[in-house]
Amino acid sequence: MAFSEFRSLDEKSLIEYIKAEPALSSKLGSNLDDIKIKEVGDGNLNFVYIVVAPGGSFVIKQALPYIRCIGESWPMTKERAYFEALALREHGQLSPEHVPEVYHFDRTMSLIGMRYLEPPHIILRKGLIAGTEYPLLAEHISEFMARTLYFTSLLYRSTTEHKHAVAEFCGNVELCRLTEQVVFSDPYKVSQYNRCTSPYLDHDAEAVREDNVLKLEVAELKSKFCERSQALIHGDLHTGSVMVTHESTQVIDPEFAFYGPMGFDIGAFLGNLILAFFAQDGHADQVNDRKTYKEWILRTIEETWNLFHKKFIALWDEHKDGSGEAYLPAIYNNPELLRLVQKKFMEDLFHDTLGFGAAKMIRRIVGVAHVEDFESITDASKRAECERRALEMAKLLLKERRKFQAITEVVLAIQKLQS
Amino acid sequence: MAFSEFRSLDEKSLIEYIKAEPALSSKLGSNLDDIKIKEVGDGNLNFVYIVVAPGGSFVIKQALPYIRCIGESWPMTKERAYFEALALREHGQLSPEHVPEVYHFDRTMSLIGMRYLEPPHIILRKGLIAGTEYPLLAEHISEFMARTLYFTSLLYRSTTEHKHAVAEFCGNVELCRLTEQVVFSDPYKVSQYNRCTSPYLDHDAEAVREDNVLKLEVAELKSKFCERSQALIHGDLHTGSVMVTHESTQVIDPEFAFYGPMGFDIGAFLGNLILAFFAQDGHADQVNDRKTYKEWILRTIEETWNLFHKKFIALWDEHKDGSGEAYLPAIYNNPELLRLVQKKFMEDLFHDTLGFGAAKMIRRIVGVAHVEDFESITDASKRAECERRALEMAKLLLKERRKFQAITEVVLAIQKLQS
Repeated sequence: MAFSEFRSLDEKSLIEYIKAEPALSSKLGSNLDDIKIKEVGDGNLNFVYIVVAPGGSFVIKQALPYIRCIGESWPMTKERAYFEALALREHGQLSPEHVPEVYHFDRTMSLIGMRYLEPPHIILRKGLIAGTEYPLLAEHISEFMARTLYFTSLLYRSTTEHKHAVAEFCGNVELCRLTEQVVFSDPYKVSQYNRCTSPYLDHDAEAVREDNVLKLEVAELKSKFCERSQALIHGDLHTGSVMVTHESTQVIDPEFAFYGPMGFDIGAFLGNLILAFFAQDGHADQVNDRKTYKEWILRTIEETWNLFHKKFIALWDEHKDGSGEAYLPAIYNNPELLRLVQKKFMEDLFHDTLGFGAAKMIRRIVGVAHVEDFESITDASKRAECERRALEMAKLLLKERRKFQAITEVVLAIQKLQS
Repeated sequence: MAFSEFRSLDEKSLIEYIKAEPALSSKLGSNLDDIKIKEVGDGNLNFVYIVVAPGGSFVIKQALPYIRCIGESWPMTKERAYFEALALREHGQLSPEHVPEVYHFDRTMSLIGMRYLEPPHIILRKGLIAGTEYPLLAEHISEFMARTLYFTSLLYRSTTEHKHAVAEFCGNVELCRLTEQVVFSDPYKVSQYNRCTSPYLDHDAEAVREDNVLKLEVAELKSKFCERSQALIHGDLHTGSVMVTHESTQVIDPEFAFYGPMGFDIGAFLGNLILAFFAQDGHADQVNDRKTYKEWILRTIEETWNLFHKKFIALWDEHKDGSGEAYLPAIYNNPELLRLVQKKFMEDLFHDTLGFGAAKMIRRIVGVAHVEDFESITDASKRAECERRALEMAKLLLKERRKFQAITEVVLAIQKLQS
């Protein structure tokens, strides 16, 4: 360990730290005199440094005891780095092609050293704003979700393994509470941190706060989020937690990980794609009307769910005689019954996904943390128009999710709501 | 501590233990030469000793590392005594009038010393078999359930308190697994431990194992049991875990306690009352046709749910502006909305209750551990007739539970099925 107690690093002290830590310094080759360090500076919560030397590179992520984008006035345990490292390693084992390798974790320093996702990797959200198609995105992200969710659930695990892991991740309670507040609570009440594209959306935000049916539905989802330990979920799987190139899809930032409902991850991803869709009209110009791109987003929404469904069921079928304790082979021992329970499971998961996805959309429009998809639309009235359509879609999904039977119906509803 | 490592006690070594343990010996007064010890001998899992001296009394319960009624061939962690003591103390704080006081807990010895529930206290199940009415039973048990379930849920607790407690009780995993096996799995497959009143019920037991809809429904309940940490539940709240007199109702034996779905406790109690109802025809004789008593059981079923409902909602109303994080007052801030969420919550809980109650009934008829209500009917063909009606009721409840809107409808269905 390079330092015996926690201190927040800067570019200078980080070099010192790296030189004292063989697990890191060895990644840079023999010449440590020419280390270049750049703080990325766009993290909501943490400090992230890119470290490059002639012989190699990595990323350093340090958690400070507060939320970076708010400041020291919003304290937040730096122990989140421990759960992030734990989840990164578990995700990395389950889906190595879509998770950066962890080289080093220092609990005292709340510091993770991991693979640098070199250019042309960019944050997926930025790619969506730029209008870039990623032909393998649905294939990759559905693979990541199917594997991480299936293998950490009772479909694969024994009760003993499951309860042990659940107990460990109960320690990540501060991050769970943050989600409860910003996703399930703040948007539905007056809160100092809420904002919206004012004055255009003032009435829309007020309507959310006064919608009894919406509040009833969001309470059910919040209960599921707080009480249902279905699988190890990433906990923050929006399009800002995914880095992409045309060939590569990498999931980062699982510091909100805990045992929660699977639909929260799938919904986060799909909900943020729907936000990206409704933001496109704000990015359209004379050169590119974004119509083709919008079609691609809709196709990606559809394919992500369908591929997830296919891969998840394939894993279930493959391991149905394994040690998972949810559906014992001696009971669920005929093909007809297995289809029946799988159908029921996937229907429930689909409705959870739509509900959580909708809740994640709403909070990005009337809650504290907005998304660059909309924020980068400089014309406020145009932005408000885009956001309003997304908000209407989200409200529809949250209230009527149980009526949707297939992802194609969701895509149709999105198309109906567009300009 | 009287002994430095675990040893299984007998009546002689227990006296030695008591004399060395001031928390116990002080309860017996000054004269320790005349201690009388009697092993109760009817526990499924543990050894239970009644200790009486001229100056006082208590009960000693020791967990051995196997299941007593099966033998050493079915090992079971003796750490269950730790969770039993923890739950007894928590229940005792929340509902002191209905839980015996814990005087002493010794983790090394897996030993609990607690209040002796002196005669005329008897196990409720035995009272039901004898046909004894307990006029305060519904009032008391609904009070116990409402208070222990409400105050350990997120309706009253903060997320931080909740996750901490959930993590601790994850340690009771072996007992959870036992329930999973005997309630949700074994009755639905061929298992060496299953038995039924043969040959009369052989086909009925086979029909359970081949009923796809039943297996689909029981899978949903099992998932809830394994994944949903709604409140600290007793985990085994049948009529054998309650001791009664005409004035007193005491809940004992919470060694299966963990954070699970509330409906599992309420269902266990109501389901066992329904079993008691259907067993009455087997206890009827020329002197007593049990008709009046059956009416009393049905009234008690109805009153238990209705009083539970009333008390639970009263606690919710009383503490709605407290620190519970499920329904923040700033969001659920109008009476109409509060009624709406309470109605939804209680409807879901009612359906959970019926489902879990039904599962608990089924396992007592075709699973490993049967109930004295039926076992004490010596005429096997008469017993089978009673059990068959109970089984039909349970299957109806499990499959159609969502169609029941009120407890009166359940009572009507029970009446319809009786001879």
